[in-house]
Amino acid sequence: MVTRQPALVGIDWGSTSLRAYLISADGAVLEEHAAAKGASTLQGHSAFVAALQEVAGAWREQHATLPLQACGMVGSQHGWLDVPYVRCPAGAADLAAGLRQPDDTNLRIVPGVLCDDGKLPPDVMRGEETQIVGALAHHAELADSCVVLPGTHSKWTHVAQGRIVRFATHMTGELYAVLRQHSVLGRLMTPEVPTDADAFLRGVGAARDHGNLGLPHQLFAVRSLGVTGQLPHAALAEYLSGLLIGHELRAGLSWRTGHALANKPLALVGAPQLCDRYQLALCHFGQPADLVLDNTAPAGLLALARAAQLISY
Amino acid sequence: MVTRQPALVGIDWGSTSLRAYLISADGAVLEEHAAAKGASTLQGHSAFVAALQEVAGAWREQHATLPLQACGMVGSQHGWLDVPYVRCPAGAADLAAGLRQPDDTNLRIVPGVLCDDGKLPPDVMRGEETQIVGALAHHAELADSCVVLPGTHSKWTHVAQGRIVRFATHMTGELYAVLRQHSVLGRLMTPEVPTDADAFLRGVGAARDHGNLGLPHQLFAVRSLGVTGQLPHAALAEYLSGLLIGHELRAGLSWRTGHALANKPLALVGAPQLCDRYQLALCHFGQPADLVLDNTAPAGLLALARAAQLISY
Repeated sequence: MVTRQPALVGIDWGSTSLRAYLISADGAVLEEHAAAKGASTLQGHSAFVAALQEVAGAWREQHATLPLQACGMVGSQHGWLDVPYVRCPAGAADLAAGLRQPDDTNLRIVPGVLCDDGKLPPDVMRGEETQIVGALAHHAELADSCVVLPGTHSKWTHVAQGRIVRFATHMTGELYAVLRQHSVLGRLMTPEVPTDADAFLRGVGAARDHGNLGLPHQLFAVRSLGVTGQLPHAALAEYLSGLLIGHELRAGLSWRTGHALANKPLALVGAPQLCDRYQLALCHFGQPADLVLDNTAPAGLLALARAAQLISY
Repeated sequence: MVTRQPALVGIDWGSTSLRAYLISADGAVLEEHAAAKGASTLQGHSAFVAALQEVAGAWREQHATLPLQACGMVGSQHGWLDVPYVRCPAGAADLAAGLRQPDDTNLRIVPGVLCDDGKLPPDVMRGEETQIVGALAHHAELADSCVVLPGTHSKWTHVAQGRIVRFATHMTGELYAVLRQHSVLGRLMTPEVPTDADAFLRGVGAARDHGNLGLPHQLFAVRSLGVTGQLPHAALAEYLSGLLIGHELRAGLSWRTGHALANKPLALVGAPQLCDRYQLALCHFGQPADLVLDNTAPAGLLALARAAQLISY
């Protein structure tokens, strides 16, 4: 039996939580730790040092020379170190050149990406660039593609010749959470939300067919459908989810076409449950994703460590 | 000197507050009381009786035979009495026929209006129908028009031959409040928001010119403009307000054209500060309102009391 040797400690270090991976040279995740030590929950250098020690200390004792790399909000102005954004177009080499180390550490933090054409408002990502690099590392057909990463702040990314050339963030997941918890729409909703594909697709269809009525208007239907009894209260959250994702797809698919990507592959990258939801909605638009990938952050961290020559094999 | 005689006690009884008016036969407000006794803050018949006594008791002692009428959320399922909606088309006579009295009172509550064509999701209003009736009572030119009532839940109303034939709610004001208080967008904002017409119109313009990029995407620019320093943090709330109102106007003006109302008068009815904001945005779209009216609820309550023959002079 051949034991795979670890090549990298990689950390996907977001705002509210982190996941640390012990990664082999062929991209396999040998071990994994998760912790509720998100960048926004920590303050000051020593808090970050302690969190790093907690999730990766044991690995570092065992493998003292292993390179250490992190991506995500840990590199933001409210994180450990404000790592300057790399501007589009940004590929693995550009990102590797932008790695920065907090003082007195050997941790390298991946920069986020800035999209700013000077005409539209700027857009930013931190963490998703690494997932995109990971997707590209294993799927050569995505070198010219549209990569969609659903989430709290979904990203629609135009990849050309293996680099991120532009992207657009949609704050769909956050809108869902905020409206459910804090708006009048949440008041009729039940605490438990049974999966309800019919109600979800009814919301998607409303956005697809009547989105020109405007999201601020269509959102109110979540209430009026409940008040008038036309949709059971238990189905309202799924309708809201469908409506919001539908508006994201409506705009995102038109953006994709506007950038001549309609004939390039469309990939979904993210948590399987969420990707399933997006794929269902994409099918309702008649434009299913060509590829659906689970967590590609470990592969991206490894590819960036290679691009930075932290790993030479 | 002739003293005007009171003809009606009218109450605009919303979710969070109420305003009571002593109204003369020519529509003048002789006296006014406001109280934080909104329908959603009261529970049970006796709480409503006590609130009514508090705001109108003195008037009723002085003028025992005066009719009493209320509009707004007091007539909802979470109010005093669930008064059934009147269906579109709804004019003063239809609304007067739908007045309902809570047991053992002589208070008449105005019904809300239901818009339901069986194709699109239904829509509902409670309170705004009375303001529309009030606007029509004094402005004959609005008999065929588009009446817009900005607010937490803005209403765009198609009036034909003096009746509400259809309407669309936009939850613009609530979106603004919820996103400012509970989303990532609020985090960069300053507690004080100085009026900033430039930032407001920049948001309106973004919706007007690039609204096809989608509201879930354009909202994220409120953050990225702040993070990149392209808009001062003190200006972000005004940009958000402009973006949301801009999306409402984009959809509302297209709805207006779709219902052949482009050549009919456009009226704004509501609080002057909010109407100013909407008029500024409408001008940015090149389609200013023809008429801007302050609070028309007292006039509407009086007109409905007349239509119900509670007042015969």
